[in-house]
Amino acid sequence: MAKKKRTERVERDTTKPLARMVEVAEGIHSDICRSKKPHMSFPIRSLSNVRYDAKGGTFKIMGKSSRRDFSYTTVKTFAQSLRMLAVSKAVVEDDDIINKREAYYRSKSWGEAAFKEQPESDTVMDDLEAMLGFNREQIGFIPDDHGGSVAGRLVVIDLDPSTGEEIEIDCTRFGTGAYSVPPQVEHLGFETSAKFILVVETTAMFQRLVKHAFWDTANCILIAMGGVPTRACRRFIRRLADAQDMKVYVFTDGDPYGYANIYRTLKVGSGNAAHLNEFFCVPQCHFIGVTPQDIIDYKLPTQPLKDIDVKRAKDALKNDPFFKHHKPWQKAIQQMIKMGVRVEQQAFAAHSLNYVVDTYLPEKLRSPKLFLP
Amino acid sequence: MAKKKRTERVERDTTKPLARMVEVAEGIHSDICRSKKPHMSFPIRSLSNVRYDAKGGTFKIMGKSSRRDFSYTTVKTFAQSLRMLAVSKAVVEDDDIINKREAYYRSKSWGEAAFKEQPESDTVMDDLEAMLGFNREQIGFIPDDHGGSVAGRLVVIDLDPSTGEEIEIDCTRFGTGAYSVPPQVEHLGFETSAKFILVVETTAMFQRLVKHAFWDTANCILIAMGGVPTRACRRFIRRLADAQDMKVYVFTDGDPYGYANIYRTLKVGSGNAAHLNEFFCVPQCHFIGVTPQDIIDYKLPTQPLKDIDVKRAKDALKNDPFFKHHKPWQKAIQQMIKMGVRVEQQAFAAHSLNYVVDTYLPEKLRSPKLFLP
Repeated sequence: MAKKKRTERVERDTTKPLARMVEVAEGIHSDICRSKKPHMSFPIRSLSNVRYDAKGGTFKIMGKSSRRDFSYTTVKTFAQSLRMLAVSKAVVEDDDIINKREAYYRSKSWGEAAFKEQPESDTVMDDLEAMLGFNREQIGFIPDDHGGSVAGRLVVIDLDPSTGEEIEIDCTRFGTGAYSVPPQVEHLGFETSAKFILVVETTAMFQRLVKHAFWDTANCILIAMGGVPTRACRRFIRRLADAQDMKVYVFTDGDPYGYANIYRTLKVGSGNAAHLNEFFCVPQCHFIGVTPQDIIDYKLPTQPLKDIDVKRAKDALKNDPFFKHHKPWQKAIQQMIKMGVRVEQQAFAAHSLNYVVDTYLPEKLRSPKLFLP
Repeated sequence: MAKKKRTERVERDTTKPLARMVEVAEGIHSDICRSKKPHMSFPIRSLSNVRYDAKGGTFKIMGKSSRRDFSYTTVKTFAQSLRMLAVSKAVVEDDDIINKREAYYRSKSWGEAAFKEQPESDTVMDDLEAMLGFNREQIGFIPDDHGGSVAGRLVVIDLDPSTGEEIEIDCTRFGTGAYSVPPQVEHLGFETSAKFILVVETTAMFQRLVKHAFWDTANCILIAMGGVPTRACRRFIRRLADAQDMKVYVFTDGDPYGYANIYRTLKVGSGNAAHLNEFFCVPQCHFIGVTPQDIIDYKLPTQPLKDIDVKRAKDALKNDPFFKHHKPWQKAIQQMIKMGVRVEQQAFAAHSLNYVVDTYLPEKLRSPKLFLP
């Protein structure tokens, strides 16, 4: 077995986010003191302000930004943004956490500036994140999502919330259960001797791999996304892959949603959160399957493509900088459109329940040249 | 601290489900041999075939059953049911697992009897479960759900899937993460010195309680349902509460969905799965909040009830045997309708972020007479 490599736990560094918050507030304060109209500026968050950086393997945000000037119509949003900045500063200073819904309720004491509906507070939070240039989790905001399940050759190093002592969480010791990734993962350390990370789309497939201890035979770390990966799940995989210099293999359904939504988002990020991709994308990803060619090679039962699948596939070919860059992906998607079918991870069960464990995954792992980029 | 109590792990007993499967198959076989038309019978699964057993504290299925005779129109479903029975028998014998989607694909080799769409195979699976009188997990079928997250004073005893040795999973040792409940929980053992189980609706509230080690100060086990609890989550709580003779306190949003869907389902079960309630309900449950009276006592910010909320509330009062039995619940729901508002778990954040940890939960836990039944 390979030697274990250890990445120590990171003390949360709040200096930079706090300094940046003070800087933003002081800028506004000094504008006001000099009788200048204050303003805030945010990078534009859309696919049009994104380019694919082939070398780094991620979407990069381009320079376009929008500007909110203080005026009669923006006074409320302006006040809300500053209030939210203050809340965020307190949360970071107290080493506490706050979710979107709690942030909404914190505003109830703000009088005129109180949020009427949650979408209002969500937007202000998104603005704040983009303006500060830190991801939400670094400024204390946490999502209400489940961060994914983990099993296999990995020790996670965390702090005990009650005693503050360092603890080691051995992900080989969960039996049929799993380690549930916390919403904040910036501070975690890792120790592993695994060869790679295998990320799977469905919880059911994860359970099959856990039940048959695939992490043991393949010497890997298993992670279940449960559909499109949450921010915590993406950041966890990224930090782990960076810290341990590991390859990440991704196994989803063979359909345009699995390719263009789940895999693409995990690997290079997404357009409308372009300001976050540097934290959340996982450029170490390779796509193991299910590919359109697998349908032929493994004689898999399929489902017909729906109109929405075809639309999504054509859209990926035409508009998505990631797929436009990668020839093998273009071929695969064109092949799928031509075949007119999609395929699920569970389709291997047509051969035998554990065909995926005994045959498909071991064969694919021996032929990395069949992976898609 | 209380003394630790240990419930040993249970070896999975496959004798009874297997015997029952053989019995059903032999019944059909012997009908055929005697040139009698074979039939299958199933208990009717709806609220109309359910009564509330106040003593046991659960919904009980009544005697009504439906019968499927073998005929020209039922021949396909009949064949599918028998095929599915055979698949289930093989899965149980191999100590393996199978999910709905895999079961659908297993049928692809059944020729004429292959399932066209998944709803077909789901129905056959539901029928089988009801006909055999075992829950799906006992006959090898597992859901594709996340089974809930656990943290606190609990050691779960499971088997290592690779070595088969017994392992202990200490839920105080997960830092900011959690233990993710597996889809099958029948075999788990438990050890705990906790005083009670606190089940919360949202993952975000769970995270706040974990972050502030509420399980340590309150000496309890924390479980996050993430909305309406999955089967695995319900069964896990039930087995734990039974094995350790523990009270279960439930903390949801204060709205008709939290009361009539989440809490009612967790405590007494549901109508359309009445044949399963004996396994999945948790009669040890008490409702800690958020109650309509809490809105007044804690001056909480609210949201107006929507039409669908009012409809759900009135429906609960009129048609639900559980609410019809419990006066305090009738009063609470009538009070909510009268006030015209609902309240969320996160609303306590209006006072301060950790008001729920420092004030609300400790106060409520000291006044069990304020709990709803």
